[in-house]
Amino acid sequence: MKPRVTVITLGVDNLEKSLVFYRDGLGLPTNGIVGEEFENGAVAFFELQPGLKLAIWNRKDIAHEAKVTLSAPSTTEFTLGHNVNSKAEVDDIMEQAKQAGATITDPAHDTFWGGYSGHFQDPDGHLWEVVWNPQWDTIE
Amino acid sequence: MKPRVTVITLGVDNLEKSLVFYRDGLGLPTNGIVGEEFENGAVAFFELQPGLKLAIWNRKDIAHEAKVTLSAPSTTEFTLGHNVNSKAEVDDIMEQAKQAGATITDPAHDTFWGGYSGHFQDPDGHLWEVVWNPQWDTIE
Repeated sequence: MKPRVTVITLGVDNLEKSLVFYRDGLGLPTNGIVGEEFENGAVAFFELQPGLKLAIWNRKDIAHEAKVTLSAPSTTEFTLGHNVNSKAEVDDIMEQAKQAGATITDPAHDTFWGGYSGHFQDPDGHLWEVVWNPQWDTIE
Repeated sequence: MKPRVTVITLGVDNLEKSLVFYRDGLGLPTNGIVGEEFENGAVAFFELQPGLKLAIWNRKDIAHEAKVTLSAPSTTEFTLGHNVNSKAEVDDIMEQAKQAGATITDPAHDTFWGGYSGHFQDPDGHLWEVVWNPQWDTIE
């Protein structure tokens, strides 16, 4: 297996609400909801960096397609990291997320390892960490 | 916010077991567990394509750092997609995952949209989809 992830699919309970959050609130590029003609097929894709997409898909459809049991939402299954190049950028994005309706669980602050970060939850409780790590190269 | 994810962090219950699965079973490159000198800091990173890392971190540490409540594991929160260039590659990776101890929830099969895919779960129940999509460009 090559070290590669091409799509990160988030399980959601309300596709339209999640679309509004990511498209209008965070400004991620998308063609909106597609695949509605297929049972369990309605999905929206957002283009991230080249070679990586974010998708939102109903939790019940993930359960159906992957043949697993639909379970109660859980916030501690994963986080998505969004690295930026300065503390000011962290603050700007945390504010953008707040305005978009995110839940700020952990306002941005200096970290024990010398960085600066904060966490927010999307409408389905999924965690994002917005982070400046001074040891990382500048991100284009 | 720029359309970018730099780190995908998976919440796990046993860091060592997850490390063995991803490093030895799936062959993802890593320097192993680091940060053990910090409370809530033990983590392992795997290098994926340029600009993207996979991380494994204890669920309880995610809860602590993001200031959320630790919840029961749930399989339908997200999936990670691993696109490849042929049906044979899908089969090879599903077999590799099985040998690594993954739970195959959905053996590879032709999909309604003209592709070929299967799903497996890692030791913490996290879902991966291995997929060939004939409409995608060849993946390097």
